[in-house]
Amino acid sequence: MTKEQKFIAVIGGGQPSTKEAKLAEKVGRQLAKRGAILVCGGLGGVMEAACKGARAEGGITVGILPGESRQAANPYIQIPIVTGMGYARNVAVVKSAQAVIAVGGSYGTLSEISYALQSGIPVIGLNTWSLSKNGKQDNSIIPAETPMEAVEKALSMAANQ
Amino acid sequence: MTKEQKFIAVIGGGQPSTKEAKLAEKVGRQLAKRGAILVCGGLGGVMEAACKGARAEGGITVGILPGESRQAANPYIQIPIVTGMGYARNVAVVKSAQAVIAVGGSYGTLSEISYALQSGIPVIGLNTWSLSKNGKQDNSIIPAETPMEAVEKALSMAANQ
Amino acid sequence: MTKEQKFIAVIGGGQPSTKEAKLAEKVGRQLAKRGAILVCGGLGGVMEAACKGARAEGGITVGILPGESRQAANPYIQIPIVTGMGYARNVAVVKSAQAVIAVGGSYGTLSEISYALQSGIPVIGLNTWSLSKNGKQDNSIIPAETPMEAVEKALSMAANQ
Amino acid sequence: MTKEQKFIAVIGGGQPSTKEAKLAEKVGRQLAKRGAILVCGGLGGVMEAACKGARAEGGITVGILPGESRQAANPYIQIPIVTGMGYARNVAVVKSAQAVIAVGGSYGTLSEISYALQSGIPVIGLNTWSLSKNGKQDNSIIPAETPMEAVEKALSMAANQ
Repeated sequence: MTKEQKFIAVIGGGQPSTKEAKLAEKVGRQLAKRGAILVCGGLGGVMEAACKGARAEGGITVGILPGESRQAANPYIQIPIVTGMGYARNVAVVKSAQAVIAVGGSYGTLSEISYALQSGIPVIGLNTWSLSKNGKQDNSIIPAETPMEAVEKALSMAANQ
Repeated sequence: MTKEQKFIAVIGGGQPSTKEAKLAEKVGRQLAKRGAILVCGGLGGVMEAACKGARAEGGITVGILPGESRQAANPYIQIPIVTGMGYARNVAVVKSAQAVIAVGGSYGTLSEISYALQSGIPVIGLNTWSLSKNGKQDNSIIPAETPMEAVEKALSMAANQ
Repeated sequence: MTKEQKFIAVIGGGQPSTKEAKLAEKVGRQLAKRGAILVCGGLGGVMEAACKGARAEGGITVGILPGESRQAANPYIQIPIVTGMGYARNVAVVKSAQAVIAVGGSYGTLSEISYALQSGIPVIGLNTWSLSKNGKQDNSIIPAETPMEAVEKALSMAANQ
Repeated sequence: MTKEQKFIAVIGGGQPSTKEAKLAEKVGRQLAKRGAILVCGGLGGVMEAACKGARAEGGITVGILPGESRQAANPYIQIPIVTGMGYARNVAVVKSAQAVIAVGGSYGTLSEISYALQSGIPVIGLNTWSLSKNGKQDNSIIPAETPMEAVEKALSMAANQ
């Protein structure tokens, strides 16, 4: 590990579509190839797929778990953080990252996107939520078409954090 | 206080428009008139306006604060809960309620909406966020046109919680 | 409720001795008689006994719960705060009080005593932990012989907070 | 990193005596030599001394921070976890470890000892708190005379977790 390595969170649901799981795995691979450390919520679905990808390329994976036991971590997590704080841990997932990549996801993912935007942490979206308020589009989630593009944007924006 | 009283959260930003502040105050008034206990994040803006309305009608107000001191509570809070947990306290604001009314709001409010929807707690929206995912509208936030309608819907849905 | 009412936490174990439960109930009664609002962790044992005492005298009771549901609150809780944060909620129990009365208790209670002392919140002890460090007694926990004395000391010290 | 590596927390105060800082550094060195991953609260004092020792031997260091920024981490932290949850993060420090070594420490350390004992995580003490309840000594904190002995005991007890 070096001081130059960026921490990038990959967030998304526990029950992704096959397409989303593939996107997440590719995101994980790219992050590892580019030397980033992957932070996630430590559980299954998008989190596990991203970690699987990262480990396939020798990357480092951190999982910030909601429950009381490290046993709940997916098998690709190297650094399990056991919070015992339930979904309040979502705050820590995003605050521990310099940029966030959201892949699909449900309301838990949306809470993480919200916290990131509130904290000024860039969010890159792949097949995820879009937001509007009072009829006006909110463009804070930066769209990406491919895992490669998502990782590119995340690392480039993280550099400024 | 009686066992029949409902706990309703009012969420929204610290710097609302004049219109949003008025809506929030009316929501607070209606909640108190109808015997509900108002839960909020305890700070200014929409939270303070709603509490002001509730107190004007003799209602009870609970403020779940992010910081380290009860001094940060707005002057209309009767029960200040001091968490010292920062915005992780947003989880507690919504979980302590049987229904949530969102008035305007920024990303912090969006995190609260997300947590409520994740937990199956009904969310009524007044001039607030709307959501879509992968181009499909998500209609989980129940729209209301007036404070009266918002309170009506919140109490009716809370009854089933 | 008035601005002059003090918030006093009563902390202690979920499985107290008969003696501890009686002490806690008397503490609750005295707090209510003296107009204080009782804050606790919302569950059974010492928490429930104290709330039972407080309610018998028409006092107000707040329970800051670790779990995901208000159903876990003891039957004497009027204001259930649902944190979903597990034992991290212990911080909020003590920070929401101007003084803390510990009755018996195990390691969870000790974590609450620790947080209170760290935050400069006075702790009064009835049959509870005593501390020493490197062989030197630490006298930060103020001993009381009776529930009456504990409440007297708690209210008097809370006045200076 | 391998599946066999143990996670050991080193806890202690931000303003240790010179002796405590030396003990902590030696603990960190020994943990790294023995292949353990060091978990701590990420700040200065005992935490920094332990991390310095671990890094001198090429060990891995994880810091679970209370505040909002990774900048607060001591310079020897490789994996900063940013919780934004204040001292509620103490829960995560101990739950992320399979055994805990306490070096000196004040009330924050005592809260971590309490959480560990509550969770059944072994606590080894070097010049730290000792506990008694109702006049009876509580021997749950396992004493060690030297950093070597503390690490030995921590790793041996962690093996059973």
